[in-house]
Amino acid sequence: MNKTRMEAFSDGVVAILITIMVLELRPPEGTTWQALKPIIPVFFAYVLSFVYIGIYWANHHHMLQLTERVNGAILWANLHLLFWLSMVPFVTAWMGEHHFEPVPTALYGIVLICAAAAYTILQRALIKEQGPGSRLASAIGPDRKGLVSLAIYLIALPIAFYRPWISDLLYALVALTWLVPDSRIEHRIREG
Amino acid sequence: MNKTRMEAFSDGVVAILITIMVLELRPPEGTTWQALKPIIPVFFAYVLSFVYIGIYWANHHHMLQLTERVNGAILWANLHLLFWLSMVPFVTAWMGEHHFEPVPTALYGIVLICAAAAYTILQRALIKEQGPGSRLASAIGPDRKGLVSLAIYLIALPIAFYRPWISDLLYALVALTWLVPDSRIEHRIREG
Amino acid sequence: MNKTRMEAFSDGVVAILITIMVLELRPPEGTTWQALKPIIPVFFAYVLSFVYIGIYWANHHHMLQLTERVNGAILWANLHLLFWLSMVPFVTAWMGEHHFEPVPTALYGIVLICAAAAYTILQRALIKEQGPGSRLASAIGPDRKGLVSLAIYLIALPIAFYRPWISDLLYALVALTWLVPDSRIEHRIREG
Amino acid sequence: MNKTRMEAFSDGVVAILITIMVLELRPPEGTTWQALKPIIPVFFAYVLSFVYIGIYWANHHHMLQLTERVNGAILWANLHLLFWLSMVPFVTAWMGEHHFEPVPTALYGIVLICAAAAYTILQRALIKEQGPGSRLASAIGPDRKGLVSLAIYLIALPIAFYRPWISDLLYALVALTWLVPDSRIEHRIREG
Repeated sequence: MNKTRMEAFSDGVVAILITIMVLELRPPEGTTWQALKPIIPVFFAYVLSFVYIGIYWANHHHMLQLTERVNGAILWANLHLLFWLSMVPFVTAWMGEHHFEPVPTALYGIVLICAAAAYTILQRALIKEQGPGSRLASAIGPDRKGLVSLAIYLIALPIAFYRPWISDLLYALVALTWLVPDSRIEHRIREG
Repeated sequence: MNKTRMEAFSDGVVAILITIMVLELRPPEGTTWQALKPIIPVFFAYVLSFVYIGIYWANHHHMLQLTERVNGAILWANLHLLFWLSMVPFVTAWMGEHHFEPVPTALYGIVLICAAAAYTILQRALIKEQGPGSRLASAIGPDRKGLVSLAIYLIALPIAFYRPWISDLLYALVALTWLVPDSRIEHRIREG
Repeated sequence: MNKTRMEAFSDGVVAILITIMVLELRPPEGTTWQALKPIIPVFFAYVLSFVYIGIYWANHHHMLQLTERVNGAILWANLHLLFWLSMVPFVTAWMGEHHFEPVPTALYGIVLICAAAAYTILQRALIKEQGPGSRLASAIGPDRKGLVSLAIYLIALPIAFYRPWISDLLYALVALTWLVPDSRIEHRIREG
Repeated sequence: MNKTRMEAFSDGVVAILITIMVLELRPPEGTTWQALKPIIPVFFAYVLSFVYIGIYWANHHHMLQLTERVNGAILWANLHLLFWLSMVPFVTAWMGEHHFEPVPTALYGIVLICAAAAYTILQRALIKEQGPGSRLASAIGPDRKGLVSLAIYLIALPIAFYRPWISDLLYALVALTWLVPDSRIEHRIREG
């Protein structure tokens, strides 16, 4: 069972998600710089989500490169990840349009947690199919970076109700740590 | 005549369908958890349709793997299936925004029936081209699962006018039975 | 210079066009069968455009199969075709929402003419690059079918201002004659 | 690390961008030729942006053809370019709906400058990975055309506040000079 079509489908969905978010950036009524002001938080929410979706795509890309076989369970673990990613435009719009208020900020965090969990489930399904001695298994290892990210999200969640901007900074912080594609995997790929 | 481009085109359309549905999830005006309440039925309708489109994609993927040749009739049978799938976002939005009321629930069922019929027509066109002794023909066999699904849809349709929630449960039930990709085909692929 | 990426890009654009049209089918306010009535002309306009875009995709697919090389001029002739196809959702929505009135029906015809002209330009650019003795050149021949279609569009255009439904029938008639992918090309492909 | 998936993802995003812009072309309320009049500037803004996105796609296509390896930095330089291109539908809508007024015209120019800068960064990242003696490096050379384009954008920017139509002409002028795909690269590809 080949992985090419699963990759192509995922690329399609992710490409659409990353571009439909920009549809939420509605052109303002006025034609002054001032008129753009209410759009600024929507813009920042968009940048954050663009980076997150980009990170998921880059890591998905890397992970699949070390994958040889896929099965039915992997197909559905992948669709499950795509489902949570497809929630990102919705929470981005809600958070951006309401200037990063508590509940939208918290819901954004919940979607990030669900997406991270879905990514981990997909990772485990892939490792299970490739076997514990596979290049993928040894490249991922105990996945400390993933666990730390999850911990930060869980800390950011309750903070959203008191100081949402701190939660937003934490979300951005996690994104920054992931901007470099997973070097463990890149290392393995070079080793061949 | 190669099948690659037909697969790529189908993947593109399905990827778009599965993601544009989420555009119907409009962020609410308020910023409280309460404000999310009216969106809950839209969310559930979205989940159901996401799973259905995922099922069609996974089974389409499997079926095409056992296919070697395509012809003009298959191209159009495939476009016909894509047409009915493209109706899913419309009926999902109508059903979700109106809390699963009778007529929208019935129309959702009609679209499911048309999509299932279109899938069967495509399946037959594929089997005809590959020949009755082909791996695809023997993998599909009499297609009991497809017939049972169709029967359940036909039962759910009149019920929608009296107890729409029973119809919705039936739609969800059929989806659950298909969540596992067609094991007959997966079996054949492994056998090689 | 390989043709694969041009095919993939075209498939992407066409897949998006064929699916975003359905976004114009807005779910009605009410929840009765009656409430669907004003959507019926939009639905028929959508079906017609879906078939047209499907025809362009199928014929594009066939034509590119007999193509070996592409160049810069072909890339732009292809983008030019995609430009006119991208106008289809706009004219479909206008015509559908206004019950096939004269001016929208005429504009729909103008877009069909421009798309047909763009297709012919692309065809000539492809034949020029492959050479007059190429399989593509002999498969297309004098392209009578394309010329007849263009003639029918030109007849339908002025009629739109008096009896728009006759123009619509003519558009549908042309679509029907193209539903079967170009048998001249299919013939050549089989001959190998 | 292969470049295929990065190309496919870029094609997906660009295909979506070039088609969602047309969603801004809302069908007018009336059904007369007059009713189309307010849409004319939106249409011209759409044509200009369609050509720009087409140019980026064609040149991206060419540049990647001379590329053999990609790395993490290239993935992100590519996403950075896609980010600025994804801003194009927003500024196109703003500029078109407000008849090419000063601030929207200037913002359009800013997005063009950012996209051009992002393209240059991607070009350098690609050259760095392929090496200074690579075919790509010698094909691009000192990239005078890119520098001249940037200079014209920088001249057009302040002019937008006094005579926006001059800026628009300058944007269109740059687009015209790029309509032919980069002949330096096409030359190298032919040489093989």
